This record gives sequence, structure tokens and C-alpha cells, in this order.
Amino acid sequence: MRLIGKQEIEDIAIGAALLGTGGGGDPYIGKLMALQAIEDNGPVKVLSVDEVPDDALIVPSASMGAPTVMVEKVPSGEEAIGAFQSLETYLGKKIFATMPIEAGGVNSMLPFALAARLGLPVVDADGMGRAFPELQMVTFYLEGVSATPMVLADEKGNHSLLNTVNNVWAERIARSATIEMGGSVMLSIYPMNGQTVKRSGIPDTLLLEERIGRSIREAKQRNEDPIAEVLKLTNGYKLFKGKVTDIDRKTETGFARGVATIEGMEAYQHEELYLRFQNEHLLAETKEKVLCMTPDLIAVLDSDTGMPITTEGLRYGARCVVVGLPCHPKWRTTKGIETTGPRYFGYDVDYTPVEKLADKEEA
Amino acid sequence: MRLIGKQEIEDIAIGAALLGTGGGGDPYIGKLMALQAIEDNGPVKVLSVDEVPDDALIVPSASMGAPTVMVEKVPSGEEAIGAFQSLETYLGKKIFATMPIEAGGVNSMLPFALAARLGLPVVDADGMGRAFPELQMVTFYLEGVSATPMVLADEKGNHSLLNTVNNVWAERIARSATIEMGGSVMLSIYPMNGQTVKRSGIPDTLLLEERIGRSIREAKQRNEDPIAEVLKLTNGYKLFKGKVTDIDRKTETGFARGVATIEGMEAYQHEELYLRFQNEHLLAETKEKVLCMTPDLIAVLDSDTGMPITTEGLRYGARCVVVGLPCHPKWRTTKGIETTGPRYFGYDVDYTPVEKLADKEEA
Repeated sequence: MRLIGKQEIEDIAIGAALLGTGGGGDPYIGKLMALQAIEDNGPVKVLSVDEVPDDALIVPSASMGAPTVMVEKVPSGEEAIGAFQSLETYLGKKIFATMPIEAGGVNSMLPFALAARLGLPVVDADGMGRAFPELQMVTFYLEGVSATPMVLADEKGNHSLLNTVNNVWAERIARSATIEMGGSVMLSIYPMNGQTVKRSGIPDTLLLEERIGRSIREAKQRNEDPIAEVLKLTNGYKLFKGKVTDIDRKTETGFARGVATIEGMEAYQHEELYLRFQNEHLLAETKEKVLCMTPDLIAVLDSDTGMPITTEGLRYGARCVVVGLPCHPKWRTTKGIETTGPRYFGYDVDYTPVEKLADKEEA
Repeated sequence: MRLIGKQEIEDIAIGAALLGTGGGGDPYIGKLMALQAIEDNGPVKVLSVDEVPDDALIVPSASMGAPTVMVEKVPSGEEAIGAFQSLETYLGKKIFATMPIEAGGVNSMLPFALAARLGLPVVDADGMGRAFPELQMVTFYLEGVSATPMVLADEKGNHSLLNTVNNVWAERIARSATIEMGGSVMLSIYPMNGQTVKRSGIPDTLLLEERIGRSIREAKQRNEDPIAEVLKLTNGYKLFKGKVTDIDRKTETGFARGVATIEGMEAYQHEELYLRFQNEHLLAETKEKVLCMTPDLIAVLDSDTGMPITTEGLRYGARCVVVGLPCHPKWRTTKGIETTGPRYFGYDVDYTPVEKLADKEEA
């Protein structure tokens, strides 16, 4: 057990935004909500998965929808409490702890805001070790865990409790409800016992996020290169450095989809990188070759500060470094690739791990 | 209390299809389901509203979606039972009886199929005294009754339980879920106690349906004009007689919308009637004048048999009589007109009762 106060929240927010690969919502909004809740209620207990009783009820809390909408429609926190308590009532069992479903600006922070307000601990695990755009894209799903019963709650006070035959149906029905409810809602989802969390979750994601955030912060204090620190902590690769020259972005069917063009600088001069995203950065390629693809992580970092940039934060003229990080091994299984690989998102390439693509490069 | 067997079901089905004003789903499918359930389980008890205890839990059962879809995706009956039992579990109280939410081919029959299978009575009341295309278009809504908690269930086994801040949100969220769930689902909706049914429902709709159906059947046996009998029972008006010459129909945003053109015959020669519908027939007009409009009832009857024709049953060449019937007085209040009047459906006319339009005609 460790306590998460304001400094830890600041560090986790940065690490989560980086692992969020451009998605998971605006890190600023989520952080403000978590900081305010900790200011009001004191630090939040974080439990490692080993500290969770096997029969305890754990319910992840998350937002669903297009981050471009959430920037304008900031959650009050009441939505999450409503979604949580509705599910608790329905299940007829006290919830022991919450946890994040993914790494990402908002969805790593919201469980802290909720936990602080309800006096519950947060379990140090998630279902992605990164961010992904759809509900069934979690390691819980790979292990056969049901997303439902789940509750969607909007800021108006509408609640929808779903029980679906599988997680793809949960995603479909919840997505259309989300659009109707204003494009962004809070969820309580994937209710699990402690044993299932241990079996199907990715452990220690919060710890990694905190380390990434702290190393970026401390490198800047020492005037060192924060990006080198990040690559060390994550076994990652520097893919590209350049300047954003074009963004083609639209919010459709509840997602923020698009492609950013980055013109190379320094060692990458005369090259162009195309960064394709659907809430998250999913594929980075030049005219000649693919450099990194989902489910491996593609993060875009401000070239001066090392701070991660979200897909909705990508702006014309932004100077950035693009890095590729290997995903958790659970994603590299056959079912993992089927669920989150490039073909699922409509890119006509076979999955190749980022380290193989990088090795080819060096060979 | 009276018992409803197979002959009564046959009569109610015809009367319900007529009051359904072209909507409420295919009468044949609903009737088959009710007849089969009565064959298997025996007659169903119908209670008049006076026979319902004030504190008994009453839950209407209904289908939602485009009738054009339901003709191809016939409900098995399990969806309705699932929706019903989910709501019973959620409310933690035994359901005393079910009832129809509207008059219409499927939605008048499905409560009988459900009641027969579960051994429950049906209350003789509904929320429309006709059919309407949206969930909040019920007299329950005019009296401030909430549509939620409600459950949507599809044939795959997906359930969605909604709790919304008002009935317009219930309609919006349920409609988008219905489309995602395949275009047609079963609902348990507007849970009410007996007192609320008495206050907010339209009583004796089943009795009227049965009388209409029986009078059409008996008039045919006596070789008399069934349509004259119907007009007597409903205080209705004959608006037009003709032959369908054009149908413009599309299924969009979960509704079957369109307009039928009917070329006049006999006294109506050289005239054309335009019949505008959105699941139900909503407005009947010639080039010169409006003859009848929602919330008054517009029914299209086969000119030979007197049998009601649904919007999806309208076919090129069909010879028909169009009749207009006054709606229940609850619909003629300010809130009633706001909720179901011509302007709500996008027709730029003020509501005028069918009897006034007919009087003008005669004057």
C-alpha cells in the first residue's frame, strides 16, 4: 500500500498521458479533478494487486467518448459516483476498490477523483497498459471477462445499465448510447473479483506511470534530455523528430479520427511521418516504411519539454519527437492481435513488433 | 374480470390494428404469438382498471422499432420475458399484471403472449388509445409518469436498463440502442402502481378493440358494410375512398416514414389523397385541404373487407376507405397537442379536431 498525494498525481498524469499514446482524454482536466478531490478528501491509498483479497469486488471507472467532446463537456464527478453506485446497488455487493481501465490522461486520473471522494483504495493495475478506443480492447476481454453489467451515466443524470451477450455488443450498444447522451459519459464497467484482476489485468501500470512522470520532471530539473529517460524506463525507440505540418481530423461515430503529417528535422530531414489516429495514435509510417503500429505504443512528445501530446493537442507547427514502445506481451498473442492489431483498425499490414522494425532499420 | 381466448384474440387483433392507425406493427405476427401462447397455457384474464389494487405493480410490455424490421425479425417471446424479469429483479417487487402501451397490431397482442406464458392478468387500459411512434407519446407522460426504469431486450440476449431524467431522454437513448440492437427490441416500460394506471391510462381500450373486431366480423357474416359499423362504434368519419397509386417509403433513424398517394373513386373521383405516415398514419390531406391529423386517428381499411391496412401493408393498387376517428380527450389538452400534434411531427398546420374539419366540409 502506498499513498498518492498531489505530487504523485502530477507525475502519474504525465506518465499516463505518455502511455495513453495520444488518447485517453485530456490530461489537464483529469488531473484537475483528481487534485481537487485529494485536496478535499486527503491522499488516496493504492494497493498492489497482491494486496487485493481474491473475493473483493473491484469495479473500474472510466469515461467513454470522443476526447474532443470531453474538453468542452467537463465531467463534474457526480456522473462517476452515479455510475458506480448504480452498479453497486444492482450487484447488491459493496465495492472494495476501483481501478483504471486504461492508461491515459482522463482515464488514469478519474479513478483517483472517485476513490478520494468515496474513501476507497485504487488497485495498481489496468486493462491495457496503454489506451485503446474500444471497450473490448482490454486484457480482461482476452481472458474472457465480461464488460457487463456496466452502467453509463451522463451529466444530466441519465443512467443506462447494460447486460450484453459479449463485449463486442457491449461496445456497440454503449457507443451508440454515448453518442446520444452527448458524446461523452462516465462508466462503471468490468466488475471483477480480486482473483480475476490478478489473472487478467496488467499489474503496476500506475507505478510505471509515476516513474515516467517523475523521470521527465527530474531530467528537466537537471537540464538533461527527458526523452532519453523515458526510452530507458520503457525499453522504447525514438522513431522520428519533426514539425507538424498538417492535421486532418474529424469527430465521427463518437471517435476523433485523423492523420497528422510531421515534416522531419535534424537526422530526419527530407522525410515525412504520417501519424494515423483514432482517439489514440495507431500507426506511424513514412512514405517508405511503417515504423510502429498498434498494439505497440506510439507517443508524441514535445521535443523541448518531453511532455506527451494528445491527438487533440496536435497543432500545426508543434515540434515533437515520436517514440515507439513495446506493448504488454498479452497484446502480442493471437487474440490480442485480432482485437487490437493494425487490421482491426483497417490498416492493411501485418503486425510486426516495434523492436523488429527498429532492428531492420539498424541492420 | 373476463377471459380472453382465441376468438377474442382474433377480434382484438382487428380492432387494435384499426386503432393502431397503420402502426404498432404487423397484426398477423402479434396475433400468432398470442394465439400460440394461449394454445399452450390457456385463456388470459383481463381485469378492468377498477379491479386492480392501488398498490399493485403494473408493467406494460411493448416492442420498439420499425415494423418493417419486425416483419423479418419475429420476436420469440423470450425477449419480452427477459425484459420483464430484469425489471422485476431491479425493482425488487413482484409484477402483478401487464398491459399494452398502445393500440396496434403487435403491441396489443404481445402483452397477451407474455401474460399467457407467465400466468399473469392483463389490465384493460393503454397509454394511447391508438398507436404513436415515440415512447413519450403516452397519456402516462401527460400525467408526469416516468418511462423508466425500463429494460430493452433483443433476441441475442442483450439487455439495457435505462434510468433517465425525463421521457424525452428515455426515447432518445432507447431509440439509438434499438437501432444498434438490430432495429427492433422488446421493452418493459412505465412501471406503475394500480392507482397511477387509473389516473393516467386510457381505460377499456381492449374492450373497444374487441367490439370493433367483432362488429367487422359479424357485419361481414351478415353481408353488411363493416365500415359503417366501425364508424358507429368510434364516432368516426369517412374521409375518402380510392386506390393507392404511389408509395414513397423509407426506413430511417429507426422509423418507417413516407407518404402514400390515393386516387379517388366514386364520390371522390378526380381527387387525390396524400396520406403521410411515420410508423402511423399522421396526416390525411387533399390538394385543397387537410381532412384529419394527429392526434386524431386515421385508419385505412380495405374497401371490400373492412380490414385495417398497416403502413407497411399499403400496396400499389389497394382499394381502401380512409376514416378519421376522434382521439381520447387527454390528447386534446395543450400538453397533448404539444406532444403528438401535427407540429411535433413537422407538419406546418395547427391542430383542428376531425369533427370540426368534417363539419366545415358539410357546411
